Amino acid sequence: MKHGIKIVTIGGGSSYTPELMEGFIKRYPELPVREIWLVDVENGKEKVEIDAKMAKRMWKKAGYDVQIYTTMDRKKALQDADFVTTQFRVGFLEARIKDERIPLSYGMLGQETNGAGGIFKAFRTIPVILEIVKDMKEVCPNAWLINFTNPSGMVTEAVIRYGHWDKVIGLCNVPVIAMMKEPEAIKKSPQDLIYQFVGINHFHWHKVYDRNGKELTQNVIDALFEGKDIGLPANITNVPFFKEQIEQMQMIPCGYHRYYYRQEEMLAHSLEEYETLGTRGQQVKQTEERLFSLYKDPELDYKPDELSMRGGAYYSDAACECINSIYNDKKTHMVVSTKNRGAIPELPEDCVVEVSSIITGKGAMPIAWGKLPSAQRGWIQCMKAMEECTIEAAVTGNYGLALEAFALNPLIPAGQSAKNVLDELLIAHENYLPQFQAKIASLKAQGIQIKDPVVAKLVEEGK
Amino acid sequence: MKHGIKIVTIGGGSSYTPELMEGFIKRYPELPVREIWLVDVENGKEKVEIDAKMAKRMWKKAGYDVQIYTTMDRKKALQDADFVTTQFRVGFLEARIKDERIPLSYGMLGQETNGAGGIFKAFRTIPVILEIVKDMKEVCPNAWLINFTNPSGMVTEAVIRYGHWDKVIGLCNVPVIAMMKEPEAIKKSPQDLIYQFVGINHFHWHKVYDRNGKELTQNVIDALFEGKDIGLPANITNVPFFKEQIEQMQMIPCGYHRYYYRQEEMLAHSLEEYETLGTRGQQVKQTEERLFSLYKDPELDYKPDELSMRGGAYYSDAACECINSIYNDKKTHMVVSTKNRGAIPELPEDCVVEVSSIITGKGAMPIAWGKLPSAQRGWIQCMKAMEECTIEAAVTGNYGLALEAFALNPLIPAGQSAKNVLDELLIAHENYLPQFQAKIASLKAQGIQIKDPVVAKLVEEGK
Amino acid sequence: MKHGIKIVTIGGGSSYTPELMEGFIKRYPELPVREIWLVDVENGKEKVEIDAKMAKRMWKKAGYDVQIYTTMDRKKALQDADFVTTQFRVGFLEARIKDERIPLSYGMLGQETNGAGGIFKAFRTIPVILEIVKDMKEVCPNAWLINFTNPSGMVTEAVIRYGHWDKVIGLCNVPVIAMMKEPEAIKKSPQDLIYQFVGINHFHWHKVYDRNGKELTQNVIDALFEGKDIGLPANITNVPFFKEQIEQMQMIPCGYHRYYYRQEEMLAHSLEEYETLGTRGQQVKQTEERLFSLYKDPELDYKPDELSMRGGAYYSDAACECINSIYNDKKTHMVVSTKNRGAIPELPEDCVVEVSSIITGKGAMPIAWGKLPSAQRGWIQCMKAMEECTIEAAVTGNYGLALEAFALNPLIPAGQSAKNVLDELLIAHENYLPQFQAKIASLKAQGIQIKDPVVAKLVEEGK
Amino acid sequence: MKHGIKIVTIGGGSSYTPELMEGFIKRYPELPVREIWLVDVENGKEKVEIDAKMAKRMWKKAGYDVQIYTTMDRKKALQDADFVTTQFRVGFLEARIKDERIPLSYGMLGQETNGAGGIFKAFRTIPVILEIVKDMKEVCPNAWLINFTNPSGMVTEAVIRYGHWDKVIGLCNVPVIAMMKEPEAIKKSPQDLIYQFVGINHFHWHKVYDRNGKELTQNVIDALFEGKDIGLPANITNVPFFKEQIEQMQMIPCGYHRYYYRQEEMLAHSLEEYETLGTRGQQVKQTEERLFSLYKDPELDYKPDELSMRGGAYYSDAACECINSIYNDKKTHMVVSTKNRGAIPELPEDCVVEVSSIITGKGAMPIAWGKLPSAQRGWIQCMKAMEECTIEAAVTGNYGLALEAFALNPLIPAGQSAKNVLDELLIAHENYLPQFQAKIASLKAQGIQIKDPVVAKLVEEGK
Repeated sequence: MKHGIKIVTIGGGSSYTPELMEGFIKRYPELPVREIWLVDVENGKEKVEIDAKMAKRMWKKAGYDVQIYTTMDRKKALQDADFVTTQFRVGFLEARIKDERIPLSYGMLGQETNGAGGIFKAFRTIPVILEIVKDMKEVCPNAWLINFTNPSGMVTEAVIRYGHWDKVIGLCNVPVIAMMKEPEAIKKSPQDLIYQFVGINHFHWHKVYDRNGKELTQNVIDALFEGKDIGLPANITNVPFFKEQIEQMQMIPCGYHRYYYRQEEMLAHSLEEYETLGTRGQQVKQTEERLFSLYKDPELDYKPDELSMRGGAYYSDAACECINSIYNDKKTHMVVSTKNRGAIPELPEDCVVEVSSIITGKGAMPIAWGKLPSAQRGWIQCMKAMEECTIEAAVTGNYGLALEAFALNPLIPAGQSAKNVLDELLIAHENYLPQFQAKIASLKAQGIQIKDPVVAKLVEEGK
Repeated sequence: MKHGIKIVTIGGGSSYTPELMEGFIKRYPELPVREIWLVDVENGKEKVEIDAKMAKRMWKKAGYDVQIYTTMDRKKALQDADFVTTQFRVGFLEARIKDERIPLSYGMLGQETNGAGGIFKAFRTIPVILEIVKDMKEVCPNAWLINFTNPSGMVTEAVIRYGHWDKVIGLCNVPVIAMMKEPEAIKKSPQDLIYQFVGINHFHWHKVYDRNGKELTQNVIDALFEGKDIGLPANITNVPFFKEQIEQMQMIPCGYHRYYYRQEEMLAHSLEEYETLGTRGQQVKQTEERLFSLYKDPELDYKPDELSMRGGAYYSDAACECINSIYNDKKTHMVVSTKNRGAIPELPEDCVVEVSSIITGKGAMPIAWGKLPSAQRGWIQCMKAMEECTIEAAVTGNYGLALEAFALNPLIPAGQSAKNVLDELLIAHENYLPQFQAKIASLKAQGIQIKDPVVAKLVEEGK
Repeated sequence: MKHGIKIVTIGGGSSYTPELMEGFIKRYPELPVREIWLVDVENGKEKVEIDAKMAKRMWKKAGYDVQIYTTMDRKKALQDADFVTTQFRVGFLEARIKDERIPLSYGMLGQETNGAGGIFKAFRTIPVILEIVKDMKEVCPNAWLINFTNPSGMVTEAVIRYGHWDKVIGLCNVPVIAMMKEPEAIKKSPQDLIYQFVGINHFHWHKVYDRNGKELTQNVIDALFEGKDIGLPANITNVPFFKEQIEQMQMIPCGYHRYYYRQEEMLAHSLEEYETLGTRGQQVKQTEERLFSLYKDPELDYKPDELSMRGGAYYSDAACECINSIYNDKKTHMVVSTKNRGAIPELPEDCVVEVSSIITGKGAMPIAWGKLPSAQRGWIQCMKAMEECTIEAAVTGNYGLALEAFALNPLIPAGQSAKNVLDELLIAHENYLPQFQAKIASLKAQGIQIKDPVVAKLVEEGK
Repeated sequence: MKHGIKIVTIGGGSSYTPELMEGFIKRYPELPVREIWLVDVENGKEKVEIDAKMAKRMWKKAGYDVQIYTTMDRKKALQDADFVTTQFRVGFLEARIKDERIPLSYGMLGQETNGAGGIFKAFRTIPVILEIVKDMKEVCPNAWLINFTNPSGMVTEAVIRYGHWDKVIGLCNVPVIAMMKEPEAIKKSPQDLIYQFVGINHFHWHKVYDRNGKELTQNVIDALFEGKDIGLPANITNVPFFKEQIEQMQMIPCGYHRYYYRQEEMLAHSLEEYETLGTRGQQVKQTEERLFSLYKDPELDYKPDELSMRGGAYYSDAACECINSIYNDKKTHMVVSTKNRGAIPELPEDCVVEVSSIITGKGAMPIAWGKLPSAQRGWIQCMKAMEECTIEAAVTGNYGLALEAFALNPLIPAGQSAKNVLDELLIAHENYLPQFQAKIASLKAQGIQIKDPVVAKLVEEGK
């Protein structure tokens, strides 16, 4: 790591890259980056070049001597990397649109990290992340992998369990936003509060205390039901929780819990968007196009405000903070996806959980939570099992296990429609699912057609 | 226990009573019953008297000197009992009809042991079973409680956890029927097969082996997909499972798994019945009326064939077999609801599970199964947590916990409709839910109406 | 298995072979043995021939047509075997004498299954059993392995964990003797009692109930303190337990618990024997010589009474009963070493425990015990960890782990003497410890001498 | 907590009080103490007065306005306390001398926190701490209890499990000293190192890493075997560990592990002291007398160097640091006794462990360690079970459980001598063991005499 840090960003052509740059620039005095490699695939070349130019302008403005490289040759980029961040999206936003629209065409939720969509994002991403780990073992065996490709928890678990790579931390912006917004909602400053989070990615709860150890969880619950913003990600509709339920649990759910605690309304909202202005992926596609047209402006040398409107805001900043904490052994409190180690004693000791952790020079040290009440325990055990089936199916291409994951997923009502969704998604994502090739061929031979016209067109166009 | 065994049957006015009598008569040579007390509530008096007369004819025909008593005074009946069997139904079949129709009126499943219906059956039954246990502690502290009131697993867990009564075994006819039908389906005789069951009530899987230890699970799966009867209870529609899923798990699901693995179709079927010939409860009501008109026949002195057509067939026979095994320390293999003790190591050690057990003079000794695959583990952990919330809410009347149980239940899509179902069920069952009185009063004050006209009428009539 | 069962007995030249023959003869009507192969090593040839002739006389007298073969070619014998029993002793009784005398020469216990002796018996036996399993995979992949070579629990765990062979059951005569003697001591007949055992090999406790489920554990404890024989193996000195301790635990300890609960006195007794008439191994050597001189008698065609005086009596009969239960799927209750599967939830799910099990055509199905009180839990967790270190050291030859096993063993006070015992035992058993060759060579190079003159002489003689 | 913090120190007459004062003075700028109450019993009055005067001089010199009070009325002192520290010693140093000498008179270890001595220190201390907690519930329900009375782990567990008081942290100086000395031994500065500790009080291991996450555990092991000081407490003889064992475990044991890994030598050393210059307690008594004669000097206004020579050095400083971290929510890394919560997943979730924790305004948040290797797992499970038996016996006065604790304790060879030690200790500590009064009376009636003349004399003198 002499003469500064080498960062490699897989999926460098993401619209979040300027946020990442901003995060590194802000921390440069303590985090001396030497070079940043933006890696992408051939189809992402245009965007990564735009990002790279924008990045160069941002660094130039900041006055730091940091080199920005772009390449389609991942292994070359990884050579001697210190930190590898992953923000790639296999199949681009078109894949997300498929993940959303096919389930919705059968009347079920198709969110990109929850429901059938999340399962398929795992199916596409896990084989790629395992290839990245394979490369890292060869050319940068001491590097840290900071993943923020979703589904972040499952991707991180795949890296540890199947990639046998322990130097990995999975990130999520949801806890970041909560800890940013809640203090205001209860009229406290962030440094006055003690947080403890427990759960798995996009499925965690937390409690809050003041510096005297007095629990303020109920205060946040009150603020929530008074309509205050306690950190709902931009991509999640604000359906209210049931007050009696949240007060009974005395824990603050995350925004994504709406999909589980208010499934009916969240589905209705998604169906409405599906039938009118298009799914979130379709909306984001437009946002992204706007963003890249902004980025192209040779005068723009700072992160535009529009970026914050995306659901993933602060993800990249969290990545920079995490890298900073590792590099400087800052022992910061962050909520990350890491190996359980007993922190949630009722989940397997070696699975990945998302909990309050201390980020040190040796990585994340998870804080033990202890036993959960029945309901939270049951939910999280169910979700973890669903993740395990998904990850194993992603690695093996086992169709029966994919059916098991679908059946276990609380957002997918099991039955013929669910099977149709599974089958259509396999066909729609054919190009990115080598592990399922035999099954896909057999499904196509059966003449299975994709019902949703938007997706059918995308597939026809080879996207 | 000198001079023969004293049996007390709570809910003695059930239409299953003749099966119970048949079971005792068949086993009399080794199980010397002295007297049987049929206990019921005032509203069940007519039926219990019919049952009692029928029972007397059956015993007379058998030529054994056994006294049959009826009473509405439970505590008097329990005095010095040796075995207490529970087959009561709080609120009669009208309650079942409410459990089924209110959820279906919102488009969700309302089965009597699964979904919202099962939760409410627990809410009504658990306070009563705890009263029974209280009586037993006073007047027959050495008796065994053999429960076959549904939801059998939750009722048994309530007895152990909240009643602090360990001499209890919960029964289910589902495994009995499986072990009765499967051998024929794979052309084996019952004594040639070794069974091992694992799970919880109405949610278990099993494996089969021949006497040489060769696993025959796949043979049963094949038979199942060839359309053979492998023991589907009469009350469950025969929607086929997905073959790839079952073959992947290499375990034989129980009939009730259709509600979870083919939720869509099971719901569609229930909705169709709801809208046409009436729900299962309504059908059973007719069957039951037919049965009692048969029982009234002063010439009838044997269990009529029609009884076997009900979903609960063989329940009472299982109860007799269980009593026989305890009384004679027969060490029979039975599948019963009993304290886990590690048999399923991934569930709480002190919860109730339904597993292969050896029935001895000291009760059920559960056989340890070991670790389950991810999917089965996740399902059962989720279901057990849902049961725990349900049982605790049944004991405490905590509305927030009831919401938690509803949200966790895989057959209830969480949201406003689910909350409406909960609220309407509370109102509809008002007479049998003392623990929820305050909440019910507040709901009624809000002017909440019952949507389903059949149920609304029942409630109006005070049933 | 057509035309009768083929039995292969490794260590066929044991003095217990006549008991094994008697066991098979007694059960012939339901257990149709066709041929028995007695396998031994070159040095055991004389004894195995004596045993074979004796066996032939016994079978002839019984009038059954069973062939007896002897061979030194194990793999040939194993061809198409149905059941393989293992009763071999690596290094013969001379090895036992070393196991006993070296620790005693440093003032610490050297019992053959407990203390340093037991650890070394595992070190010698485990590599051989893994070779046997390797052969079985090739030539009799459907056979059952019934192990009664000590330390039976560790040997069985090695077979499952490192040999990856699940069709194995480990046997012990200690529970057999308890269930044989206790009924008499409390004036009951064996069929009146229900037993449940929990623990690991030579370290288990049990409870007793009558057929009505009434616990009789205290009655057995009373009988024990009244001096009645409740099944103490012949090789264990009868030092009384502390009554307050046993009454507090309300469980009946096994005979071997004396080494742990009365360590001081058991050590004193062993030291006395060591200094006077010789250790148990030396005594047994004489018994064995007497037995073989009896067996040589061409007129002797039944098991002589003298055999019952050895500590291992009924081991072989238990083996026959176990084989019978598997072959005929008898579902007998036996206490065997088998995979835990949660039966003792506080031990690893996949370790080997010795618990009440049902022996079926598919092997042993362990009965779940549930949580243990603190003291019993702590003992058994400590002992199991010691076993795990021992087994792993036996497989890998890791000296550091051997030191860990020694330190953990409650009968070995850690320190320089313990290390000397370890080193001397390694040197003394050099011929049977290929996995430790490098360490042994280095110890010999350091000039380490064996202190005990008897052992020194055995080593000098190459025994 | 307005107008500064109120500290109450139970056992205020300890010779460590000046260290405690020094600790508070050093931290005054961020930890504004208002008043300190030194509480002691009548027999400790002289010492507490000396301490109080000395404390006043120290605070005066520091120039801070802090009031020092002494009282024998504990409850009065506790009124509205913010932090309660406990450093009392029931029975004074005479009790320690009994704890040490009686076991040694039977040839077994009698250390004050390990072996029989530690068990009896728990027997005497736990009833008193539970009384303190009872008072705190009444008069200072928001206070934190910072315990450093030994055996610190068992005392803390008793407070949580039997006192139902969660605002407690148990302290130990052993990890403090390790983290103070090791950096020097491996030529690093403390802030360059990342530590993680796992275990229970006086029985923990740790690993060390540099800020880049590189493990340095082997470097510390090397330093240890090169004879460097890595933080051995002053009261523990420096017997070397076995290098092969420590290298195999790849964890750094604590100083107290010598009693378990080198039991023979540690016992020999204690016996030698016992027979010559007197046990540690006797030596400490002299040190303490010297210290108090120093403290009497009206000119002395700083902690004298002699205090650091005691084994407990830095305990009080750790207490101040802990209070500071809670008060200021400093999120410091400290190694403390706190509720497990899964941090060591193989111990009960609700027991007390001593692990790396983050000390916040809401108390200690333990860092999850994950699974331990077999040997460490077995040791710690055994020790925790021994602690559980001890604590329960301390609360209930159950003699059978005391026998169980003795038998489980690895430093006590079970048998008649152990029972004699137990009985003599009961008699010797009669004045401080109300829970065992019936048993003690019965032992005295049997005429049991104390063998050790020094202890016999102390008892005769009523000490």
